[in-house]
Amino acid sequence: MLIVMRTDATPDEIDGACRAVRDLGLSPHPIPGKSRTAIGITGNVGPVDPGQLSGLPGVVEVIRVTRPFKLTNREMKPDDTHIHLGGLTIGGPDLIVIAGPCSVETRDQTLGVAREVKKRGAQILRGGAFKPRTSPYAFQGLGAEGLHILAEARAETGLPVISELMSTEDADLVEQHVDIIQIGARNMQNYALLRRAGQCRKPVMLKRGIAATLEEFLLAAEYIISQGNHDVILCERGIRGFSDFSRFTLDISIVPELKRITHLPVFVDPSHAAGRRELVIPLARAAIAAGADGIMVEVHHDPKKALSDGAQALTLPMFEQMMGELHAIAPVLRRR
Amino acid sequence: MLIVMRTDATPDEIDGACRAVRDLGLSPHPIPGKSRTAIGITGNVGPVDPGQLSGLPGVVEVIRVTRPFKLTNREMKPDDTHIHLGGLTIGGPDLIVIAGPCSVETRDQTLGVAREVKKRGAQILRGGAFKPRTSPYAFQGLGAEGLHILAEARAETGLPVISELMSTEDADLVEQHVDIIQIGARNMQNYALLRRAGQCRKPVMLKRGIAATLEEFLLAAEYIISQGNHDVILCERGIRGFSDFSRFTLDISIVPELKRITHLPVFVDPSHAAGRRELVIPLARAAIAAGADGIMVEVHHDPKKALSDGAQALTLPMFEQMMGELHAIAPVLRRR
Amino acid sequence: MLIVMRTDATPDEIDGACRAVRDLGLSPHPIPGKSRTAIGITGNVGPVDPGQLSGLPGVVEVIRVTRPFKLTNREMKPDDTHIHLGGLTIGGPDLIVIAGPCSVETRDQTLGVAREVKKRGAQILRGGAFKPRTSPYAFQGLGAEGLHILAEARAETGLPVISELMSTEDADLVEQHVDIIQIGARNMQNYALLRRAGQCRKPVMLKRGIAATLEEFLLAAEYIISQGNHDVILCERGIRGFSDFSRFTLDISIVPELKRITHLPVFVDPSHAAGRRELVIPLARAAIAAGADGIMVEVHHDPKKALSDGAQALTLPMFEQMMGELHAIAPVLRRR
Amino acid sequence: MLIVMRTDATPDEIDGACRAVRDLGLSPHPIPGKSRTAIGITGNVGPVDPGQLSGLPGVVEVIRVTRPFKLTNREMKPDDTHIHLGGLTIGGPDLIVIAGPCSVETRDQTLGVAREVKKRGAQILRGGAFKPRTSPYAFQGLGAEGLHILAEARAETGLPVISELMSTEDADLVEQHVDIIQIGARNMQNYALLRRAGQCRKPVMLKRGIAATLEEFLLAAEYIISQGNHDVILCERGIRGFSDFSRFTLDISIVPELKRITHLPVFVDPSHAAGRRELVIPLARAAIAAGADGIMVEVHHDPKKALSDGAQALTLPMFEQMMGELHAIAPVLRRR
Repeated sequence: MLIVMRTDATPDEIDGACRAVRDLGLSPHPIPGKSRTAIGITGNVGPVDPGQLSGLPGVVEVIRVTRPFKLTNREMKPDDTHIHLGGLTIGGPDLIVIAGPCSVETRDQTLGVAREVKKRGAQILRGGAFKPRTSPYAFQGLGAEGLHILAEARAETGLPVISELMSTEDADLVEQHVDIIQIGARNMQNYALLRRAGQCRKPVMLKRGIAATLEEFLLAAEYIISQGNHDVILCERGIRGFSDFSRFTLDISIVPELKRITHLPVFVDPSHAAGRRELVIPLARAAIAAGADGIMVEVHHDPKKALSDGAQALTLPMFEQMMGELHAIAPVLRRR
Repeated sequence: MLIVMRTDATPDEIDGACRAVRDLGLSPHPIPGKSRTAIGITGNVGPVDPGQLSGLPGVVEVIRVTRPFKLTNREMKPDDTHIHLGGLTIGGPDLIVIAGPCSVETRDQTLGVAREVKKRGAQILRGGAFKPRTSPYAFQGLGAEGLHILAEARAETGLPVISELMSTEDADLVEQHVDIIQIGARNMQNYALLRRAGQCRKPVMLKRGIAATLEEFLLAAEYIISQGNHDVILCERGIRGFSDFSRFTLDISIVPELKRITHLPVFVDPSHAAGRRELVIPLARAAIAAGADGIMVEVHHDPKKALSDGAQALTLPMFEQMMGELHAIAPVLRRR
Repeated sequence: MLIVMRTDATPDEIDGACRAVRDLGLSPHPIPGKSRTAIGITGNVGPVDPGQLSGLPGVVEVIRVTRPFKLTNREMKPDDTHIHLGGLTIGGPDLIVIAGPCSVETRDQTLGVAREVKKRGAQILRGGAFKPRTSPYAFQGLGAEGLHILAEARAETGLPVISELMSTEDADLVEQHVDIIQIGARNMQNYALLRRAGQCRKPVMLKRGIAATLEEFLLAAEYIISQGNHDVILCERGIRGFSDFSRFTLDISIVPELKRITHLPVFVDPSHAAGRRELVIPLARAAIAAGADGIMVEVHHDPKKALSDGAQALTLPMFEQMMGELHAIAPVLRRR
Repeated sequence: MLIVMRTDATPDEIDGACRAVRDLGLSPHPIPGKSRTAIGITGNVGPVDPGQLSGLPGVVEVIRVTRPFKLTNREMKPDDTHIHLGGLTIGGPDLIVIAGPCSVETRDQTLGVAREVKKRGAQILRGGAFKPRTSPYAFQGLGAEGLHILAEARAETGLPVISELMSTEDADLVEQHVDIIQIGARNMQNYALLRRAGQCRKPVMLKRGIAATLEEFLLAAEYIISQGNHDVILCERGIRGFSDFSRFTLDISIVPELKRITHLPVFVDPSHAAGRRELVIPLARAAIAAGADGIMVEVHHDPKKALSDGAQALTLPMFEQMMGELHAIAPVLRRR
């Protein structure tokens, strides 16, 4: 259910509506919009009787929301969510490119790549400090030291940084050092982690699980938002299929569908989807052409020496070519 | 195996090399290129001893082809295959758009849609006369009458037409009336049909089976080409997955991979992949951005009345919007 | 729609009901049952008004059939379909085992395997004469010669034989020589072939397409039955998935579901599903335990020398072990 | 790598070999077997030079283990892992049946079901206290109170209990109250949770992720075992596919493959795989016939009133029927 308030509703009227929702044993979620506030209602098992709410002061109407996801639903909040990060706006007209190494390996490597991608137009730096690895015997990332290196790279280049949070134990540390908290595909239904991320004061990029449906993906985002953190970025990164030529199958169709039914920014990670650098640039172009707000790619100054996922990292000349092509496509989508 | 001939090899030398291949019990396939002829060799179970061929007059070298597909392989023929159709070149720098109704339903409907899509820039008309339907009780197409309507639409608009061939029995009839023969996804491994299409003198568009790997797809094309018909267009139309929002999962990644490893034109059919018109335009943009040579879309002047697949047909205003956007993206890919 | 006739309805009354159906522009399909005849109705787009039929002489009631498949539907024909073949009954209480080589390679090989599997309890001999091969360059089977060898094996051992029909052109030849016509997974939606098989007077085993849903599978069977051939055996042979240890993913769950919603016999082919002989016996046991009417397995006297699919063929000792285990499980399912 | 010790190797010799492994910067994992001890080695990036270890006192040979999973690998430990729980042995000749409600809902419901399933032969009681739910708005389980109810049910019936651990925060609590700790499919790659479970002193049942390959599944088990907890039970519970009749696709083939390549007990959960009770009994029979050591099923005394997953819970008469059939199949597999 959604309570739509009048454009001139007072804070008291909004409070009053929230109180009335609570009196019914439900949870109110005020959602400020461009011209008016709406109040999402969750916690109901069956439908709520709108009559109990529609007569309250400042209330225009009470609408039934038909999908199981509520706070991520464009029916609840028609305006795009804009996430502000320094001078950047994610989810707005600017095309956003996140780039950097798969793993933070050394200070030199990370700062080197950071400088080079910034020079070529990247707006955010990525780099894994805590690395989810299929095998317990593989390189697991530098951990806290990796976060310090990322912070140093930000200090030098001015690029905000994104890095993955893998466990609730590390949440304080990660929140303190990064500008965007990444939740990886393997943890898309790790509900304790989603709830903890929902209590952070930093934006969260949620990657789609490798076999998650659209509904499961949005309900995972709902776990975060229902804890009070509205700044969620959705990221498609390829689903599991039977491909004999790519590591995962990039589900490009989810991009326009997500843009249609949610108000959240939508990104694509072509590097993990493809698993091979030859495919990354065409997939990045396809992502932007399909309507994504941005992409996240892996770049390495010397991919053959990468400690993880070297085969999918773009070289610097490839990254430069990609940036040129993406910016040529962006205006077709009314992006800058 | 592939025999590369000298640029100045004479027809006699090429004949001689073919004869030597036949003497080994194998099949030679001369592949004329821009600057020289190559001769593909098929029929060998194990590797062929190159020594028996490399010393022949006019032969530069004999190369082992490492993939099971041979005649579709760019290793065998580095130049893009160009298919000439009236004034059109498929697989060249022009972006090609095939449009029309799912089924030929009536003369008026087909001619009406043909005129409208031509006016908005479509270069080829599609329309199903023989319709593969999951249920034996569903509308199966107008058959021969449908082909006559398509021929009439071509006569009036000048657009070449493409329609599906579903059985060897209809091959003469279909070949006579259409300009491009379509083999549908359900028949991608109907080998009798592929062989028959390989004996036609018209180009063939081969749609990918809903669960075909890249290798299976190319080996299906190989069935056609090995019968002597080199004019094959590959078409991605979505694969089966677990999607809860689209009918199939468009495998956009196969587009750049096919362009990389084969010389054949690559098309995308976003209409069947999505199953819903809201997604068709973004997917068409993604296809062109990923490097496809063209797209095939369903357009209906009144989608709600369509006898088949109405939900996925673009309206005329949507088609017009799409054409504008595709032509804005094309130059990024050095297309017109 | 389904017309249920009285147990004592006369042939004239049945004819009359069929005539009434035809008068409505629809097709009647009389389905004789144990105690009474029912008449399936197909050809209607929307629901038929039962009032037009329920008052006819000999009619008990007119029932709406809710699924798109009609003639395969147990709602239409509650009794199991029994297919009689010599002394065998397929779909009845006997556990049926079809065994033999993947391909008919030589007379000696085929007769040799036939004798050995018969000795160990196989009731039907399999062997490919026309072989669907992914590559046009792979061994395509002996064709007509293979059929003659199979006929000879039948003459010597008394085992009925099953072999694949791949194209309508070969239908007369195949129908003449085999006892059961197999339609392979690649041709499950080759509708011309299904219709032709529906005109044959021999039972048809229809293998599930590698990405066919249950509904698509049954509608393919419906193509055959709607041509008048009611003797259809359904065969699960593995679906395409992401497995890193088996060639296909055996969808064991479809066995009990098919037994529940159709009246047709259900078989399982564990050899093609697994692609590796180590898994064939456990999967055969699982198939029978799940309720399959029988299994079809590949057996080779010397698998390492097989011209096709040697890795999945059981050796003779393995076949013998399997037969013992299957017959120990069968009584749990009230089978012999 | 694996060091095989002599049958009469002394504890000192085993210690010496472990020390030598540590001196190489690697981790030794002593694996006691029936007749001799082996020492698994992990932590090496490339191959280890066996010469450094093969000459040590008490060492028979040093073997290269070819798969990325080590401690779960039957090459490392040929004997089946037996997990002892009260008088039960999991992974031995006894067929083990775990049964109970999806969620612990009330004391009466849980104790009632516990008594009834015990009476019909279940050896272990299941029941969710912490429930992973796709939606944040769905019933999340009773938490600690649910664990107390389970403990009470154990006290009364003598059945050991299994319940799911969803977050590291609850690990102490769950470990204290349950006899087997379950890690659910959604958390199969929640590495912090796997590591924490590896530090527990209770056996762990690890459910396969919905799109996990066999290798990923075993490497997840490896995370647990490499922390020192060797008592891991693997559980197949269905993978995501395109089924139009079951919630997930039970991958029955993984059962014999896991039994072949690992020494761990293998279970199947047909309830979650099917999502519909009509399919549960045939799938349970198939699981045992394929070689599973046991099954886990949901049973509810009144499925229509279940707070979660009611459609897949067996009724008590169905459970009784299933037990009879499983025990009739078990002897074929040399089980009791």
